[in-house]
Order: sequence, then structure tokens, then C-alpha cells
Amino acid sequence: MSLVDVSAFADELATASGRVILPFFRTALVAENKALPGSFDPVTEADRAAERVMRQLIAERYPEHGIVGEEFGAERSEAELCWVLDPIDGTRAFMSGLPLWGTLIGLLRSGRAAYGMMHQPFIGERFFGDGTRAGYRGPHGSGELRTRPCASLAEATLSTTSPAMFSEAELATFLRVEKQARLTRYGYDCYAYCMLAAGHLDLVIEAGLKPYDIVALTPIIEGAGGVVTTWTGDRPERGGAIVAAGDPRLHATVLEMLAR
Amino acid sequence: MSLVDVSAFADELATASGRVILPFFRTALVAENKALPGSFDPVTEADRAAERVMRQLIAERYPEHGIVGEEFGAERSEAELCWVLDPIDGTRAFMSGLPLWGTLIGLLRSGRAAYGMMHQPFIGERFFGDGTRAGYRGPHGSGELRTRPCASLAEATLSTTSPAMFSEAELATFLRVEKQARLTRYGYDCYAYCMLAAGHLDLVIEAGLKPYDIVALTPIIEGAGGVVTTWTGDRPERGGAIVAAGDPRLHATVLEMLAR
Repeated sequence: MSLVDVSAFADELATASGRVILPFFRTALVAENKALPGSFDPVTEADRAAERVMRQLIAERYPEHGIVGEEFGAERSEAELCWVLDPIDGTRAFMSGLPLWGTLIGLLRSGRAAYGMMHQPFIGERFFGDGTRAGYRGPHGSGELRTRPCASLAEATLSTTSPAMFSEAELATFLRVEKQARLTRYGYDCYAYCMLAAGHLDLVIEAGLKPYDIVALTPIIEGAGGVVTTWTGDRPERGGAIVAAGDPRLHATVLEMLAR
Repeated sequence: MSLVDVSAFADELATASGRVILPFFRTALVAENKALPGSFDPVTEADRAAERVMRQLIAERYPEHGIVGEEFGAERSEAELCWVLDPIDGTRAFMSGLPLWGTLIGLLRSGRAAYGMMHQPFIGERFFGDGTRAGYRGPHGSGELRTRPCASLAEATLSTTSPAMFSEAELATFLRVEKQARLTRYGYDCYAYCMLAAGHLDLVIEAGLKPYDIVALTPIIEGAGGVVTTWTGDRPERGGAIVAAGDPRLHATVLEMLAR
């Protein structure tokens, strides 16, 4: 499967899943769900419907490929090419009506993240990369993604989804890093990694991630010139505690602090 | 000036300011600014350029109207009709490349917020209201804005831009409320109030607001069925410590806790 095929097919998956998810976003159904405990959960419904449509497209076109998804688990995950899907990354933003969630579509080749796309269908923007290049298409134009230089932690803008995602030991480590950073932003989910790739943030530190939280984002970050690993410096494809930096020098500095 | 004129003119101001701001958003200029301390600050430049174009339009069309803006202060603010402008509310989101900032355009009539609009030009959405009705236009449609019912704090989703915005005494009070809320979201600036008007959040509690942070949002919240006052229950037009609730019952409950 060539990279051209991969990227065209990822676009198809993004378009199809976006069509399925959008009717659930900012509806009264979502807004009022909390009044109906135990009944219809529209975020889960949107999540499932979108993963179902992507799985079906993959099964029709590439029946030999593996699939790992947030909602329906793994099938043929030992295949050379394996899609890793998170239909709605950022469900809390989704539930609050904020278009800061994204659909994550990743492709592993022999276990390594080879292609990834983040799609925000409400805004209509796509971030994508193959580990060597990364690009963007949005409502006001398109272009290449490049991380920005940031040599030291003292100059770095750091982002993490929530301090609540860390274990006690992880939090102590995170706070040591945060104390030295220039400033910290919370709550951006997959957008934090895309903004790092686009050169607007320098550092993302998270923990407890699943493979589907990070596989699609990895080739975007790497393609834009950034580095993403676990806190112990290993490849990020299996998730866990993750650190991404736009500038490799910053990644090296922070990795030393995290691995301690 | 009829309400039809007001809303058409607010649309013009939004369109003009959006055109001025957008070229500054997500540019390398913004991304790399921190490497150039003391030099060109693109967020301030965008802010000023947008306020300048709105002031000029107002001065040409309605020279007798007052204007209060974040960047260039007040002129004729004692006029019966006075525009209150914040070109970029949410500068930290703007600087991180996240489209969660908004242009706030409000109109005071004899000191009372009579019309307001929040414009997000990157996404292309507008939230607006006149205190009795509120509406929305966006990339996927338009409609009326209505808050959702939420009778008790235990069911409420609460939002605040940052705990750092509170004084020590305010923070203690805020934390008492937060402890009883269902969940809390941080960092949404003007979007929190618009999502409250749209029925996706129940409660926003903030402090240290300026008039231009809240005047434009007030007629949207009120028009959608919500209530917004200071922590002591006064009109919100002068800013300060502000509480907005989608459900008047929730506002009454929380006001009692805040006023203590």
C-alpha cells in the first residue's frame, strides 16, 4: 500500500466518520442527556457509529488489514498494516459543545506508526503526517506543518489534558517539569499535539494514554520535526506515559527529568 | 436605532474585524514571537487593528454613539448608546493556535446591555442576543439559543477560565461551589458563556472581569433564558465577579453561596 493510497483512504475514512458524528454534536440530545441517567448516551452512540462506518470501509477495501478501535477492540491486530481508530478524542469537549475534539485515524506498519490523521469535522480541518512530512488542510487554507524551535524548558509552552490523568508519582514528576516551563495550558486533548506540530506549543506531557490516543498523532508530530516517546524514551505506539516536544533538544532535556 | 439596525451593524463590525484578525491567527509570526522579546507582538497588533477598524466604522456611521474598547479606552461613554468591544477575548487560546477565542461586540443602552455578539471568524460562527431572544449562525446551520434546565448544583457542569483569576477570598468561595458541582471545565473564555446560552454548560463563575469581557455576552445569555449577575446579584455590565447560570433556579442557589 503506497503512501498516496494511505492518505487518500484516510481522507475517505475522515469524511465518512465526520458525516456520522456531526449530527450528534451540539444537539439538544447531547445537552439533555444528563437528565436521563442510564438511557441513550449520544456521545457513545456517535463514537460507535463512526467507528462502525470506518471499520466497514476498511473491511471492504482492505480485508487483510488489522483494526484496533476504541469502541470495538482489536481484529487481526498482528497484520502488517493495522488501522488504529479513535472516533472522538476529547469527549468532554464534545459534551460541552466545544469543537476541540478530533477523529484520530492512524496506520501501523509492522507495529510502527506510519501514517496519521486528526480530523475536526465541525471546523473542517485535517492534520496529517507520515513521519517524514506533515501537512494541514482547513477552512482558510492548507500548508506544511513545522514545529518551532524551543531550546529550553524555561521558554516552553507546555500542555496537558488534565493533571487528574496522572498517578501520584507521575504527578510529582510532571509538576517538577511544569514548575520550570514558561506556561501551561490544560484541556486540549488531540489538539495539543497538532498545535505542537504546527509550531504553536512546545511540549505535551501526558500519562495513561491508550494506543488509539497516540498512534495517529505520532507521524504528524514526527513529520513536522518533533519527537514523541514514552517517559522512558521508548516508541510511543503502545501508549502509556507520553512526552512530545517540537524541538528535539527540549525533548532530551525533559526526558532526563521524566526518567529520573 | 432599531434592533434590526443594531444586529445588521454588529454583523458588519464582526465581518470587518474578522478580516483584520484572521491573518494574524496561527501564523509563524505568532508562533515565533516569544523568540523576539520586546519586539513585534502580533496578538496585540491583531487586537489593535481590529478595534481600530470597528471604531472607524462606528464613528462613520453613528458618530454620536459612545465606544469603550479593550485597547483604546473610552470615548463618549456617557452617550445613550455605547458600543463595548473586545477584539480578541481569549488571547492565550489565540496564541496557542486554538480557535476558542472570540470577538465581543456589545451595545449598552443607557448603561444596560441591550445587544451582544460573539464572533469566531476562524470557525465562522456567531452567537448573538438582545436580552429577550438569542440566536446562532455557524458553518453547519443556524438556530435559536436556549439554555438547558438544571435545577441543582449537583447536576451542574461548571466552567471558569482559570482558578488563577480569583483573589484568595474569591477562590475559597469558588472552591466551595466547585466541590458541589457535577464537573468543572477550565479555559474556555467567552465560549463558556456561549455554550451556556446554547444549553451545553450550566454555570460560569469568574472574577476580575472588565466591562468589555461581559457586556456583549449578557444579552446572549439573557436572551437564551439564562441569568447573569455579579456575585452580589447586581447587573453585570460593570464586570467584576460574575456568575451566569442557564437555569434561574441554579443561579439563585449559587448566588446565595457566593454572597455569603
